[in-house]
Amino acid sequence: MEKKFVESITSQKEDFSKWYTDVILKAKLADYSPIKGCMVIRPYGYAIWENIQRLLDERIKNTGHENAYFPLFIPKSFLEKEAEHVEGFSPEVAWVTKGGGEDLLEPFAVRPTSESIICSMYAQWIQSWRDLPVLINQWANVVRWEKETRPFLRTTEFLWQEGHTAHRTKEEAEEETLKMLSVYKDFVEEDLSIPVIAGKKTENEKFAGALHTYSIEVLLKDGRALQAGTSHNLGQHFAKAFDIMFQDLDGERKYVWQTSWGLSTRIIGALIMTHGDDYGLVLPPKVAPYQIVIIPIWKNESDKEKVYRYVDEIYEVLGRQFRVKVDNDEEHTPGWKFNEWELRGVPIRLEIGPKEAEKDEIFVARRDLRTKTSIKREIMVEEISNLLKDIQKSLFDKAMKFREERTYEVEDFNTFKDIMDTKRGFVKASWCGDGDCELKIKELTGATIRNIPIDWEEEDGKCILCGKKTKIKVLFAKAY
Amino acid sequence: MEKKFVESITSQKEDFSKWYTDVILKAKLADYSPIKGCMVIRPYGYAIWENIQRLLDERIKNTGHENAYFPLFIPKSFLEKEAEHVEGFSPEVAWVTKGGGEDLLEPFAVRPTSESIICSMYAQWIQSWRDLPVLINQWANVVRWEKETRPFLRTTEFLWQEGHTAHRTKEEAEEETLKMLSVYKDFVEEDLSIPVIAGKKTENEKFAGALHTYSIEVLLKDGRALQAGTSHNLGQHFAKAFDIMFQDLDGERKYVWQTSWGLSTRIIGALIMTHGDDYGLVLPPKVAPYQIVIIPIWKNESDKEKVYRYVDEIYEVLGRQFRVKVDNDEEHTPGWKFNEWELRGVPIRLEIGPKEAEKDEIFVARRDLRTKTSIKREIMVEEISNLLKDIQKSLFDKAMKFREERTYEVEDFNTFKDIMDTKRGFVKASWCGDGDCELKIKELTGATIRNIPIDWEEEDGKCILCGKKTKIKVLFAKAY
Repeated sequence: MEKKFVESITSQKEDFSKWYTDVILKAKLADYSPIKGCMVIRPYGYAIWENIQRLLDERIKNTGHENAYFPLFIPKSFLEKEAEHVEGFSPEVAWVTKGGGEDLLEPFAVRPTSESIICSMYAQWIQSWRDLPVLINQWANVVRWEKETRPFLRTTEFLWQEGHTAHRTKEEAEEETLKMLSVYKDFVEEDLSIPVIAGKKTENEKFAGALHTYSIEVLLKDGRALQAGTSHNLGQHFAKAFDIMFQDLDGERKYVWQTSWGLSTRIIGALIMTHGDDYGLVLPPKVAPYQIVIIPIWKNESDKEKVYRYVDEIYEVLGRQFRVKVDNDEEHTPGWKFNEWELRGVPIRLEIGPKEAEKDEIFVARRDLRTKTSIKREIMVEEISNLLKDIQKSLFDKAMKFREERTYEVEDFNTFKDIMDTKRGFVKASWCGDGDCELKIKELTGATIRNIPIDWEEEDGKCILCGKKTKIKVLFAKAY
Repeated sequence: MEKKFVESITSQKEDFSKWYTDVILKAKLADYSPIKGCMVIRPYGYAIWENIQRLLDERIKNTGHENAYFPLFIPKSFLEKEAEHVEGFSPEVAWVTKGGGEDLLEPFAVRPTSESIICSMYAQWIQSWRDLPVLINQWANVVRWEKETRPFLRTTEFLWQEGHTAHRTKEEAEEETLKMLSVYKDFVEEDLSIPVIAGKKTENEKFAGALHTYSIEVLLKDGRALQAGTSHNLGQHFAKAFDIMFQDLDGERKYVWQTSWGLSTRIIGALIMTHGDDYGLVLPPKVAPYQIVIIPIWKNESDKEKVYRYVDEIYEVLGRQFRVKVDNDEEHTPGWKFNEWELRGVPIRLEIGPKEAEKDEIFVARRDLRTKTSIKREIMVEEISNLLKDIQKSLFDKAMKFREERTYEVEDFNTFKDIMDTKRGFVKASWCGDGDCELKIKELTGATIRNIPIDWEEEDGKCILCGKKTKIKVLFAKAY
């Protein structure tokens, strides 16, 4: 039975893409919905999102931002005010054309992102330098009509947070853009145990309407990159389009400088594909819906009573400090449950039988390494607390090691192409800075410049495609 | 300056409706948006909603429910599956007819409520009695095309939670419906200090598609009623429409029994109109974004330094336990700030000047009663904690007293009509149980049956309109 259960997930090696959807469906993270491209986030998946929200929201508030809520609908004319913005987003928009039984005079876009509706309000709220900065964040659903969709990674509707700020000076806006990039980096690395590379997007890849865009990029287990969060310096593009002006200290009326930044449910896709293995999901303790699952094991009624009493006592103590699930469903065998909770990625499993009750111990199985050990009851709180910290760190280290092994420094185009055609991974290579060269590389290899990492120093080199001398090294990968 | 500031709110007596919108706009709870009928919830208003979400979510989870997320869009054919449901909702629906540059083959409704999309998933997830009960809640935005809108009370888009459960038996579904009604009652009374009357809706007023509906009803300061939450026993209506069947213990395939229940941002309207006064908003401590505001008062630089140091010490202690805002903006006078934070309804204001610093005291102004007192620093944490509890309770008592004074037991139709035409309020009156009588009363007086309170016992009487003998007494009011 155990064997059969595990066999029901495709192995990563056999078909990584099928492994991914197997895990999502079988761990009950999400399900396909009758609306093409839209998924249902099931309770177990949504509990991960709630933990993500709580932890990221705290970081967003600690950096001085407040939450608010703006309308779902955006009049067509608003979306059209910023030229690059409309060009970038209009092909992906869902349009409401009827409401209350009547055709609308002007169609409404279901927000693909909220810059334009929010800017229309900022134009009213901001009058003086005293009103600045405006530091607002919104947790919301957005819709982008996608041709190819995959659960979490790319869905027609998704959930996210979008920050929208307005500042007095250009410098402040750039400082904010980089601050939020580092909030994302810290959050993803510390709370999700996923190492990221933070950098600046090229002109070709920047947000439609931005001055420039920064991103954090993740390398997934199949060697593809995923953009896990973006932070945009909007310059004065939207301020000019929406006439957001303030009276400055010197008495002059000036346009504000703006930023926007977002992180979405897509990050759950990164979480699955960074830590998961052939047994299923592996969740970092900080965002796991349950950090510990307790499985009572007994064969006869007298054992059962003893074990259940002992499990109650253990739960009573651990439940105060950790997120704990006791699985005392009697329909399934302990073996079935071991597999089930491995598949669902719970960091620590306690197997509690009569022997543990007698010896005042707990038997601990660790999901990430699949190691097992006994711990004395009197020191279990401290030991488990340390174990959870260790799992959190160990997942990060393992992912970092993987990334380092799959990051190649390449100087020759054929090698570059060969890597992209076979094992993939991150490629560090020189680039002349020309957008046409960038597009040509994409055409020939499928790889894009993920970003120009902010931590990488300038280095002499020759453009991987055209051979022109350059000092810029960039991060290439095939991306989701 | 102080006087002028207060004058800027219309008094409740002069124009209650204008008072309401004055408070919303000037306290920066919300603002009108360029989308007709949609509001922007500003950070201060949204912070109240976040507190509501946190407290209600805890109650929903404590009663065994989990959160999930279902798509925003509902195919037209799904909405049409339950006959009463489509009839009730289709006039209010916003339709998406274009997406990704193309006309859709089938239009999508922007969810006015999610029964139909959720039921389509339940039909897949539920196979056996072992899969029951399903206890799922969703926090989401919904859209209903409203002709007349008012901030919070009735907006085209609003935020809410909607619970959707499926059960094995009719009895379990009814138990769940009543359980969630009482969760709402407890939440609104204990956390928002708003007394409610819980009862059953008449057939005319029940939810479109339900077997029957329960509601909690609030009496607002202008004598109108507001439906503040509803809990529906859906019977097997949706189960039959969506074919949600399970194999029961006896081996037979049966339809599930369902419930749904919702509470929305409209409750913030009830909060404003229950506790507010001519000085502005009055917030119950449990949901106030700030429970305490500290205003430093000083005239010269040496005082300033002393006062700021003392304020820091006070904040350091109180901030650990309460939500505290220090207003050290130097653009405004203390008097201006007193008015500002009264308008914004902060339960406790501390006025801290050199005298307080010298005497190791805090000077405390209470928003609801507008009384002031000095408290010794060494006992301030306990005193303030008690004060906040007292304010929470006192607001409830005051609202209850108001409701009792404005609840009339009436046996004669002319008196009934006179009350509804003048002072309004809750009217307890006999009703024959006939829906036509109910509609006729509405036509003649504008009053509707709010509900048939579950706590009211049967009593002999004659229908207020037709005079027929009856044992049913019901709650009438003019409603928002």
